[in-house]
Amino acid sequence: MNFTINKEIMLNHLLIAQKALSTKTPAPYLQGIKLEVYQNELIMITSNSEISIKLSLKDESLAVEETGEVLIPGKYFVEIIRKLDGVKLDLSVIDNNMLRIVAGNSDVTLNMLNVEDFPQIDFSTNDNPIKIDSKTLKAVIRQTTFAASTIENRPILTGVNIRVDQQKLVAIATDSFRLSQKFIDLPTNFENMNVVIPARSLDELIKILELPLDEVLIHLDNKSILFEYGNVLFQSRLLDGNFPETSRLIPLEFPIVIKFNKNDLAVAIERASLLSNREGSSSIVKLYLRADNVVEITSNSPEIGKVIEEVFPAEKAIGVPIKIAFSSKYFLDALKTFVSDQVFVKFTGEIRPFVIEGDMDPGLIQLILPVRTE
Amino acid sequence: MNFTINKEIMLNHLLIAQKALSTKTPAPYLQGIKLEVYQNELIMITSNSEISIKLSLKDESLAVEETGEVLIPGKYFVEIIRKLDGVKLDLSVIDNNMLRIVAGNSDVTLNMLNVEDFPQIDFSTNDNPIKIDSKTLKAVIRQTTFAASTIENRPILTGVNIRVDQQKLVAIATDSFRLSQKFIDLPTNFENMNVVIPARSLDELIKILELPLDEVLIHLDNKSILFEYGNVLFQSRLLDGNFPETSRLIPLEFPIVIKFNKNDLAVAIERASLLSNREGSSSIVKLYLRADNVVEITSNSPEIGKVIEEVFPAEKAIGVPIKIAFSSKYFLDALKTFVSDQVFVKFTGEIRPFVIEGDMDPGLIQLILPVRTE
Repeated sequence: MNFTINKEIMLNHLLIAQKALSTKTPAPYLQGIKLEVYQNELIMITSNSEISIKLSLKDESLAVEETGEVLIPGKYFVEIIRKLDGVKLDLSVIDNNMLRIVAGNSDVTLNMLNVEDFPQIDFSTNDNPIKIDSKTLKAVIRQTTFAASTIENRPILTGVNIRVDQQKLVAIATDSFRLSQKFIDLPTNFENMNVVIPARSLDELIKILELPLDEVLIHLDNKSILFEYGNVLFQSRLLDGNFPETSRLIPLEFPIVIKFNKNDLAVAIERASLLSNREGSSSIVKLYLRADNVVEITSNSPEIGKVIEEVFPAEKAIGVPIKIAFSSKYFLDALKTFVSDQVFVKFTGEIRPFVIEGDMDPGLIQLILPVRTE
Repeated sequence: MNFTINKEIMLNHLLIAQKALSTKTPAPYLQGIKLEVYQNELIMITSNSEISIKLSLKDESLAVEETGEVLIPGKYFVEIIRKLDGVKLDLSVIDNNMLRIVAGNSDVTLNMLNVEDFPQIDFSTNDNPIKIDSKTLKAVIRQTTFAASTIENRPILTGVNIRVDQQKLVAIATDSFRLSQKFIDLPTNFENMNVVIPARSLDELIKILELPLDEVLIHLDNKSILFEYGNVLFQSRLLDGNFPETSRLIPLEFPIVIKFNKNDLAVAIERASLLSNREGSSSIVKLYLRADNVVEITSNSPEIGKVIEEVFPAEKAIGVPIKIAFSSKYFLDALKTFVSDQVFVKFTGEIRPFVIEGDMDPGLIQLILPVRTE
């Protein structure tokens, strides 16, 4: 193997490929980037236990003297390419198991991994993928993954349930204390789909959806899902098991509705949460709709002190006075998913789940379970 | 105690005072900010085991209804003031042991600490302080503290030795593997001084030397040193014991001198250090002055690979070819202290300390002990 290529082009592709590198793994070959060098194309493949990436690089600066395939320690390779001076990289295999990189006044030799150890990964696509706008997919991921569970006692809840039914797509995540659900309309009918994708995989996927490309193609097989985005193939394993049926959790009628300026509400909750004990994972604040249509956001920790914030709803609230307590973190996480400047917080009762919706966020609903307090 | 004040003014002063707050201490009162409220002045005092700060705030926005003194949990107080809306703060003591803070639509009550527990700290100044330009003092601190030891087995080496002899000031720090020394000229003769100040204290002091003020006054007593900077008094304890005599360590003659472009040398060392094993604290690189006047910077870790960097000296080097090995971190730390674009690296032999000097950095010398390799 022996080729030259423009350094910036190589680096930009490596920065995508490295997102599937394992940093800690008992299998050293998963810390490697596999390079397949053809006459007019460079293929990079990386994989860890959850995701795999395959990237095709075709560029006029690529000049291949000898084809071949190698497995290069990923972290060192990327760091070196990033730091090198010079416009052109010269890469070649020497002594059979070492990669020599020459650029500018630098001459680097890197021990390689055994390319035979790298697993065969099936990146095959099918003829009938779901097509989705990349901006929309990115938004759906941002609006849901945060609500997935991060603890492994119910593995299925660490994923996002994505279902396609003809022209509708819905994404749902829940850690059983809160739930996020987003519906979108697809451009045409697609085959039905019902999968659970690890939230961590989706969080890596959105880092790749930064290129100026419109469309993502989604290919499904039994055990994995493949996102095709220009010259990038991003594969994630799927979670086994049935995602819980969550539709019953969302109340249908809300006798109490308060419309807020989103930022007013967010800063009041942030301030109220300041005096909580930081040792615990989340502070509890209370919301109190007074009869005079002013909302109080309060917190009280006997050892530290208390905060009372007055927030004036954007409109006269509908319904009777209510007092409800909740995790400030869950509420703030949920608020961040809205592009709307104004949000509706809708209640059915003091110990019943409540939801947040936004006037400019069709199809998005955030549900939070309140906390019982004395 | 009861007063109102402009919020931004209060916050800016608190951000200085908080630098001497203890975050972990068995003495809760050291987590407090002491406020002394007089008719036209607010005094803030903080202290931890190493440094103490006293700050005077006089501002036309200060309106005192009732004087008094209180001790407020510092971290919560600063975070609340930072987050509050509104221009004006209203602070008052309620129920004897609680501070009420009202601003905008927020009403916060904070449990206070017992002001009687706060220690008496002597911030008295003397009539004959050393005067030094604040920019110069800041530069001296930045050029020396990094070379002090961070391990406590020889406590005296965790400090910076500062000596004044008439119109000369010298600052020296060493961890016994490297040494930094900076001489400056003072504007006039001052009384002699020879103290060792904890490097950590000085690192906090430079964070305060950001105000647009010219002069720092240095007051000394037996056990502590007091820096007076406008309305801020910054006191540090001194380290007991004798700082080692380091003048003999610095060679007087250098048969080998290489002049480098500082940045060329820095990036070559950075690249050479990339392939080292990161588990250890620092990677070892080698410098080799070849007979053809090219310098090679190399590193070699058998498990990962090797790097050879060629650096072209800014001028023909003086002296015979030399090979020397050193910690890349120590070398890069030292290079960062120079404003000069060109530096001289001066050697006496392959296993003797070498020094770095810069043509635009009079009085500054960085000394590094080489590492023996096979």
